[in-house]
Amino acid sequence: MAPAHRFTFGLWTVGNPGRDPFGEPTRAPLDPVDSVRRLAELGSWGISLHDNDLVPWGSGAAEEERIVARFEAALREHGLGVGMATTNLFGHPAFKDGAFTSNDRGVRRAAIGKAMRAIDLGARLGAEVFVFWGGREGTEAGIAKDPRDALDRYREAIDVLADYSVGQGYGMRFALEPKPNEPRGDIFLPTVGHALHFITTLARPDMVGVNPEVAHETMAGLSFVHGVGQALWAGKLFHIDLNGQRIGRYDQDFRFGAEDLKEAFQLVRLLTRAGYDGPLHFDAHAYRNEDADGVWDFAAGCMRTYTTLAEAAARFDALPEVVAAMELSSTAELARPSVDGDSPDALKAEVDALDSLAGRGYYNERLDQLLVDVLLGAR
Amino acid sequence: MAPAHRFTFGLWTVGNPGRDPFGEPTRAPLDPVDSVRRLAELGSWGISLHDNDLVPWGSGAAEEERIVARFEAALREHGLGVGMATTNLFGHPAFKDGAFTSNDRGVRRAAIGKAMRAIDLGARLGAEVFVFWGGREGTEAGIAKDPRDALDRYREAIDVLADYSVGQGYGMRFALEPKPNEPRGDIFLPTVGHALHFITTLARPDMVGVNPEVAHETMAGLSFVHGVGQALWAGKLFHIDLNGQRIGRYDQDFRFGAEDLKEAFQLVRLLTRAGYDGPLHFDAHAYRNEDADGVWDFAAGCMRTYTTLAEAAARFDALPEVVAAMELSSTAELARPSVDGDSPDALKAEVDALDSLAGRGYYNERLDQLLVDVLLGAR
Amino acid sequence: MAPAHRFTFGLWTVGNPGRDPFGEPTRAPLDPVDSVRRLAELGSWGISLHDNDLVPWGSGAAEEERIVARFEAALREHGLGVGMATTNLFGHPAFKDGAFTSNDRGVRRAAIGKAMRAIDLGARLGAEVFVFWGGREGTEAGIAKDPRDALDRYREAIDVLADYSVGQGYGMRFALEPKPNEPRGDIFLPTVGHALHFITTLARPDMVGVNPEVAHETMAGLSFVHGVGQALWAGKLFHIDLNGQRIGRYDQDFRFGAEDLKEAFQLVRLLTRAGYDGPLHFDAHAYRNEDADGVWDFAAGCMRTYTTLAEAAARFDALPEVVAAMELSSTAELARPSVDGDSPDALKAEVDALDSLAGRGYYNERLDQLLVDVLLGAR
Amino acid sequence: MAPAHRFTFGLWTVGNPGRDPFGEPTRAPLDPVDSVRRLAELGSWGISLHDNDLVPWGSGAAEEERIVARFEAALREHGLGVGMATTNLFGHPAFKDGAFTSNDRGVRRAAIGKAMRAIDLGARLGAEVFVFWGGREGTEAGIAKDPRDALDRYREAIDVLADYSVGQGYGMRFALEPKPNEPRGDIFLPTVGHALHFITTLARPDMVGVNPEVAHETMAGLSFVHGVGQALWAGKLFHIDLNGQRIGRYDQDFRFGAEDLKEAFQLVRLLTRAGYDGPLHFDAHAYRNEDADGVWDFAAGCMRTYTTLAEAAARFDALPEVVAAMELSSTAELARPSVDGDSPDALKAEVDALDSLAGRGYYNERLDQLLVDVLLGAR
Repeated sequence: MAPAHRFTFGLWTVGNPGRDPFGEPTRAPLDPVDSVRRLAELGSWGISLHDNDLVPWGSGAAEEERIVARFEAALREHGLGVGMATTNLFGHPAFKDGAFTSNDRGVRRAAIGKAMRAIDLGARLGAEVFVFWGGREGTEAGIAKDPRDALDRYREAIDVLADYSVGQGYGMRFALEPKPNEPRGDIFLPTVGHALHFITTLARPDMVGVNPEVAHETMAGLSFVHGVGQALWAGKLFHIDLNGQRIGRYDQDFRFGAEDLKEAFQLVRLLTRAGYDGPLHFDAHAYRNEDADGVWDFAAGCMRTYTTLAEAAARFDALPEVVAAMELSSTAELARPSVDGDSPDALKAEVDALDSLAGRGYYNERLDQLLVDVLLGAR
Repeated sequence: MAPAHRFTFGLWTVGNPGRDPFGEPTRAPLDPVDSVRRLAELGSWGISLHDNDLVPWGSGAAEEERIVARFEAALREHGLGVGMATTNLFGHPAFKDGAFTSNDRGVRRAAIGKAMRAIDLGARLGAEVFVFWGGREGTEAGIAKDPRDALDRYREAIDVLADYSVGQGYGMRFALEPKPNEPRGDIFLPTVGHALHFITTLARPDMVGVNPEVAHETMAGLSFVHGVGQALWAGKLFHIDLNGQRIGRYDQDFRFGAEDLKEAFQLVRLLTRAGYDGPLHFDAHAYRNEDADGVWDFAAGCMRTYTTLAEAAARFDALPEVVAAMELSSTAELARPSVDGDSPDALKAEVDALDSLAGRGYYNERLDQLLVDVLLGAR
Repeated sequence: MAPAHRFTFGLWTVGNPGRDPFGEPTRAPLDPVDSVRRLAELGSWGISLHDNDLVPWGSGAAEEERIVARFEAALREHGLGVGMATTNLFGHPAFKDGAFTSNDRGVRRAAIGKAMRAIDLGARLGAEVFVFWGGREGTEAGIAKDPRDALDRYREAIDVLADYSVGQGYGMRFALEPKPNEPRGDIFLPTVGHALHFITTLARPDMVGVNPEVAHETMAGLSFVHGVGQALWAGKLFHIDLNGQRIGRYDQDFRFGAEDLKEAFQLVRLLTRAGYDGPLHFDAHAYRNEDADGVWDFAAGCMRTYTTLAEAAARFDALPEVVAAMELSSTAELARPSVDGDSPDALKAEVDALDSLAGRGYYNERLDQLLVDVLLGAR
Repeated sequence: MAPAHRFTFGLWTVGNPGRDPFGEPTRAPLDPVDSVRRLAELGSWGISLHDNDLVPWGSGAAEEERIVARFEAALREHGLGVGMATTNLFGHPAFKDGAFTSNDRGVRRAAIGKAMRAIDLGARLGAEVFVFWGGREGTEAGIAKDPRDALDRYREAIDVLADYSVGQGYGMRFALEPKPNEPRGDIFLPTVGHALHFITTLARPDMVGVNPEVAHETMAGLSFVHGVGQALWAGKLFHIDLNGQRIGRYDQDFRFGAEDLKEAFQLVRLLTRAGYDGPLHFDAHAYRNEDADGVWDFAAGCMRTYTTLAEAAARFDALPEVVAAMELSSTAELARPSVDGDSPDALKAEVDALDSLAGRGYYNERLDQLLVDVLLGAR
């Protein structure tokens, strides 16, 4: 039986060992093949991975072949797909000043080469999307990089890699994952908006979209729903990273729904209404004080909350009180064009109506309280 | 003698009466003509204005003509230019649910008409740029607006107004001013990035750029220098709003340089290096506990700090120690393309160099400390 | 029939006219007597007020007497109590540099005198608690006030007023309401912690507690539950302000439960477990795009969500799965003293057990997911 | 020759290897004895340390004795003092749920025992202050710990350890170091205020003060100067951690002065005016993209900026324009009591003066701009 939702988990998420800046790992590493099995049992549709989640840095060609073949067999055995593949351009010390935007040209070239190898791996595994998270592309001391040069190099790298992928005949699309800060003081392409703009400057804009992450937009206090909305509006939501995060904090990557359930509800509703059919990817991990049991509690919780919210969204839209409040809010009227061949003078004359337009209410309290009622199961 | 910098102030900035959400005004209104005189005396190049800063809401046509003619005379007498004009689409109660994106179509039409009138006024006064700050375009209860509909309406309004301006033969360019929140819970086009992307979807993208504001990007904790850098990189920095702001707070609009002098230094240096020649617009106001004296202390301080920082930036770049540290940081190397016709295999082979590339330092501490030394006048 | 919860609303909350820094009022003022009637009908236990919510600034003695007597009659008629009274030391322009901590001694004295008058009013109306929110006690330009002097003056004012209240034979307790910023750049006593400490330095510490507000601690990104927990632990939770707020934003004062339902659930549960029996005060207001209908939707929603959460908390604690997960989390074990007359050497010897203690899990994912399930009505 | 300032560095600061949540170390470990030598050469007064910075976890007694004796010899040889000692209660996996507030009683007991051993080590090395940073004392899933129980256990631990230190005849004072979050979602005692209050509840409040850190208060957007001001006002500033941080971000621990130079100036001026004579401790580290050279650039920069700011503060206070602006701001008047035996009626009568008191200005713009001018070396 096919899962109702195309849920995926990164190998690095259930495999997260609980290391943080102030402490050592609290959990043993997981064998990727075991993760595949457990995720299949829990009802996940697929997995995702960085090159080095599967093939450790420094593996030789024969070792890599053995690892990948064993992994392919596990995917086949358990019927899991690969939602996306990506490359780790942040863990190796050489990337400390950036990868595609390192001041050192040798590092930039190696980063491009490493991405090419990872694209090959992703294509082999059947990944739909190849993600670029430029976690090291940024600065603490802004004076050391002209941001215009950095954007030139970033664009060059994506252009070269898009050419490569097309040249190899791979069908994968690319998705850029924005983040405002951490591990760098300020990261280039900090939000969905900056990434969407950047894509319009590429040589192959059509094959590149975004991979927004709840935690990343939320760190900057931006509305994730609005950000995803702009991506959908642009036809650029190629992938999505779901998790939980409090505003203005270190990157927490909590279980989906562990923070801001109202925003999560609206997100699930928006994805459904927009017909998003890409992977629903949980990029999160269990709290560090969990043992192995907690990892699977965490994974099951992510899926359970998404499913519960999808049901609540359907219930919400079917409620007569909601339909009535939407009408009072003139929500549907926003879809209607404002102007219909009117002359400027006609529009200028309508300014005088403002005083009389000021009196009406928009019933947002009523609508939002209905949302809360439905969310709390009280309707 | 022409001012060294094209400094401008909004009429609403020196004229700010010190009202806030918790208290009544502390200063009397200023006559715009008096503001023109005082700003000229202090060395400002020009002014900027909302329609209703000059012509109060509800003025009749004759009254408007009298006010505008008197103002034009004052500009001529004191030799001030108009950096930008804009329209107030946030103060009137009718805009409480938005202007171009209000759920009420009548409000949207009136907003477009009001903007047309303000464009006429701006053209008459010789404004170089017409700014759109969509302060009310957003939500507290996100459920009441589909963000995709809102962006459709926003785009429609800007397209209609661009057609209007071109149709009238006005040469003005448009500039969109992003802001993440306040007075709405979440504002559409929250950052420079979102606005830059939105512009690429317009019918006349070439005539529309951005007007980034220090306070607005900073509220979300984003690097203003990186945001301005992306706008310059895109050729879209049409105007700029300078002030001071702490991250994660209400919109403070402090005197330029009152917060984060290091970022201000880097901003001034970037604008100079990029050859930005538009107005340097201070969108700020005196602290509420100031009287009339404080207003002019405030205005003089904005210009003095900018000038001091521009001198410091020149001193910085001329320092031999800085030149040496830039070399050690490989800053110039970032301007060099990463790839030069290399084959994929050649690039893949360079991955093996990562271990040896990891050892070098980037001398960012040295460079940043030189910046601090210069900023503090210690070099 | 007595309401199940002692809900109260400030006159300024339902009476909020929807003015903000960028726009004029959107709703007409309410007659306080009408507010009393409507709140009684909706099921509120009582009201609260600033002196000037009821008696406009500048009223003469006879006018004040008339207003207060009419209001007392309305309270009696509708059976509403007065949860707290307070004084407005922020609206008048004279308070622009502070009230108890203004640099101007005349302002400080007038502020103390105004508070005395308001204490008289509160006592007359039978208020249980008198609140001090020092919204103007702070700085934008920190250089203009030594914070140690400001704290001296703040303490002096509270000491003088406590003496006054006791001297008059009033039984009211005082409660300090902390806030980190807005309308000042930085406010003295920015958090619950700072206020709790300040209270220990007073001449009459026993009669002074705190009035924490969801929005205020949340603006700084602090856990409201932990802050209230420390106040309860100290026996100092004399009053509480309930509303909704996103982290790192302007003061939003949204409907209770409109933001962060998980934190709201934990707050309600903590208040219940701690036996808090003071007023449950909603210090919030309807969205600015609401008309009069929206005001009462807002008020009803605050109470409805609190009630729903209280029921959910009871359901949560009764669930066998929760009891089991609490046991696995060793939650109750935290209430047990760590040391029981052990010698230092015995404790030092236990360090060797750390390696073996590292393996266990704490089942926080399981417990938190159960909370989410209950919150969403899925259990 | 004695250093002008008592600068100290933690062994873990210059020894920071550049590991972060997303990447491996970029620098080799330093021998503590080498750090001592280099810091002495650079002009540091002393060092500070965690137990495990010097004695690796798992060392036997003989190994510990050898390491400590060698370190004592290095301190003597280079004439460095020990500003503070502390214990690492966050790195070992067993502390994943907390140390003094872990739900597991065994962990709590081991944590107390480990702190006793570290107190012995600190006393042996002549540390003036013993610091407690409770980095793991907190929650992600708040439901799993009643905050009142956690505060009980926290207090118990400090009381037991204070008794131990006094019982051993050690003269060390204790200092609590608050932090709002990271590595836990929410940490108990999140700010200086919460810690100051907690101290008043201890059995030996006189021997315990606070160790505020620039980065920690700044993460929550609180004014560090106001927080340190309240600690000084309470006589509780026993130690201080200096570094740089942007609001609302991961814990950055940048070089002192790398962020917010205006706040840093005011801090240095306040410490000087208050006669603070404890260690000036830099708890920071070099950017991760630095090599060994960068570490010493970083350390020299911290001290250089502090010294430059101290000189600027002296220059500022000596400027006649500053003296005049302070007078116009009535800054000194804030030190004068507001009330001098006045009757309540006299104070109530002064309320009528508010209208006339509203007109004056406070010259904060002038004073703040003078500060900026001095800071930039322009006066």
